[in-house]
Amino acid sequence: MPSVSNKLTVKLGARSYDILIGKGLLKSAGMKIHNTVGNGKCWIITDENLAPLYLPLIQKSLAEAAMQSHTIILPAGEDTKNFETVKMLTNKVLDEIPERGSTLIALGGGVVGDLTGFAASVILRGINFIQIPTTFLAQVDSSVGGKTGINTRHGKNLIGAFYQPNLVITDTDVLNSLPKREILAGYAEVVKYGLIRDATFFEWLEKNGNAVVNGEFEALSYAIQKSCGIKAAIVADDEYERGTRALLNFGHTFGHALEAETEFGSELNHGEAVSIGMTLACKLSNILGFSRSATLNRTLNHFNKIGLMTNFPKIENRQWKPHKILGHMAHDKKNKSGRNTFVLMRDIGEAFVSDDVNLEVVERLLQEPNS
Amino acid sequence: MPSVSNKLTVKLGARSYDILIGKGLLKSAGMKIHNTVGNGKCWIITDENLAPLYLPLIQKSLAEAAMQSHTIILPAGEDTKNFETVKMLTNKVLDEIPERGSTLIALGGGVVGDLTGFAASVILRGINFIQIPTTFLAQVDSSVGGKTGINTRHGKNLIGAFYQPNLVITDTDVLNSLPKREILAGYAEVVKYGLIRDATFFEWLEKNGNAVVNGEFEALSYAIQKSCGIKAAIVADDEYERGTRALLNFGHTFGHALEAETEFGSELNHGEAVSIGMTLACKLSNILGFSRSATLNRTLNHFNKIGLMTNFPKIENRQWKPHKILGHMAHDKKNKSGRNTFVLMRDIGEAFVSDDVNLEVVERLLQEPNS
Repeated sequence: MPSVSNKLTVKLGARSYDILIGKGLLKSAGMKIHNTVGNGKCWIITDENLAPLYLPLIQKSLAEAAMQSHTIILPAGEDTKNFETVKMLTNKVLDEIPERGSTLIALGGGVVGDLTGFAASVILRGINFIQIPTTFLAQVDSSVGGKTGINTRHGKNLIGAFYQPNLVITDTDVLNSLPKREILAGYAEVVKYGLIRDATFFEWLEKNGNAVVNGEFEALSYAIQKSCGIKAAIVADDEYERGTRALLNFGHTFGHALEAETEFGSELNHGEAVSIGMTLACKLSNILGFSRSATLNRTLNHFNKIGLMTNFPKIENRQWKPHKILGHMAHDKKNKSGRNTFVLMRDIGEAFVSDDVNLEVVERLLQEPNS
Repeated sequence: MPSVSNKLTVKLGARSYDILIGKGLLKSAGMKIHNTVGNGKCWIITDENLAPLYLPLIQKSLAEAAMQSHTIILPAGEDTKNFETVKMLTNKVLDEIPERGSTLIALGGGVVGDLTGFAASVILRGINFIQIPTTFLAQVDSSVGGKTGINTRHGKNLIGAFYQPNLVITDTDVLNSLPKREILAGYAEVVKYGLIRDATFFEWLEKNGNAVVNGEFEALSYAIQKSCGIKAAIVADDEYERGTRALLNFGHTFGHALEAETEFGSELNHGEAVSIGMTLACKLSNILGFSRSATLNRTLNHFNKIGLMTNFPKIENRQWKPHKILGHMAHDKKNKSGRNTFVLMRDIGEAFVSDDVNLEVVERLLQEPNS
């Protein structure tokens, strides 16, 4: 296993922060938080599924570090990511009189992290924010980079802020209890980093991907470190997504549209939507002549071997209508001057952004029986 | 009249922007906006009182610059500054499919500006934002510096973002139609700049203050330019209010508490609350031995000459209870480690921040019959 440090720094000048990755980090979270933000008031934000699993450990750890903490438990699930929850959450925090030196701690997956980060960004125009991601997906993706937000009836994450955490604590022990479907959801983002930026990492995944999704600690840990490292470098280069950062959305333009079409429900999770989206992006790159068929096949082989979704799943009463999917894509935040933006690839590890794609080609691709 | 440029730049690196100040600028607003943000979609946000006065002019001007614009008209008044309005406003904008290059234009006073800026900061995690302030108060204060936000039941502006505009267009012609009470509200902020940072400007106001509040163009225009200039320098020095920027809150810790106590209603407007607040801050500085009595008297003389409020107004059924006012002050965003922060002064033009004030002294001050 190649060796990677268990502490990464996202280099953003005054907004730089560390990502700590390792086994058993939750136990000492309180002291790590204290060392980062001092001894102001804290609020732990988590959801009703996670609270029984990890909340007592974090509360104890904060108490041991002499940190005063409150707890707010949200309903679990993507439906919670809305304006009403932000209002409720910020009012509950304001009830206890926060100061600029106060801290919100997100203990959970992407939903808890996105909501908590957005709330932290707007309370008193910005208080401290700590991420403790408890899903593989959040550990390799959403906990790093400062994208926070909520959904509206128009789509996912259309309201939010770029707001960096002060610290990310990634305890790999939490992955022991995750079901395979959730591990695969995170793996979709892991393989994305290889596809867009790092052919060597993709090659490593071809050899070790099964060990990762089977939860073998060393492989899992390396995959997290490598994923966070690639993301941290891209974010440091382009915090506000004016250029390179858009590459991180490889597969996401399609993916978000599929999630919107299934109303962010349980039919498709984020990782599954992104897997299908990456498949479509690889096919589109090939159809448009940017990448070779060998590249497409190599990618699809790996997806199939690992068990990532590559086709629209067959769901009762669900028809995947190209014009509706394209309709959702019109809301993509990367679109410019009314033109859809696509992240495409030339080869493994070489993604690029194009706003010059013929939408008729995309519509035909979405019409393929097994697209 | 001293000469000052009619274009100021707030220097904030990549987030730098210009403040244009002059007569008749509204007519050519469209071209100025086009030159700043390009030709993306625009939304003009204004209120029902201002729409009949200025909206047709701005719409025509945008059309002349070939800019596509939508209009959203809000109810007038501080009550509009809440979560529900932000949700409604952002949903209306999202209905028309904005992009990162789209622009919200705030045409109005502080309420419209604060709401529009906050909405612009969260739509797609940040789109362009232009300020066209139509009150004296907004022209000299809230349109510059990037503080945006809404009120909650806990107090004023407790939810929001630091989000800089891309351009501020300050047309002094709009002041012709303003009632005296509104001009005085703005003047409270103007005199604040002299008191905290610029003794020479305060001296100029002692000579020309009446000309300013009587709406004499040259004096008014100079006061706006000078105020924006002082504010721009402080904001450039400390965008996120970690230090010097707190000086801009001179009189505001008390003022916000008085506004909260009167539930942001019409009993006291912001400028009146701040005038009383500055009087209290000057008295507190003197009681604590930081400033001489001569300084206090000079300040009070000027306030009285201009007609700024220096005492709690006598209002039926309204008792000014010190412990309730202190209670509101506990929510101040500048408080640290549970200690109230006060902006005090040593002399005219020399304000400083202290978190070491004995609250019993403050309580006694608030008990004085004419405090």
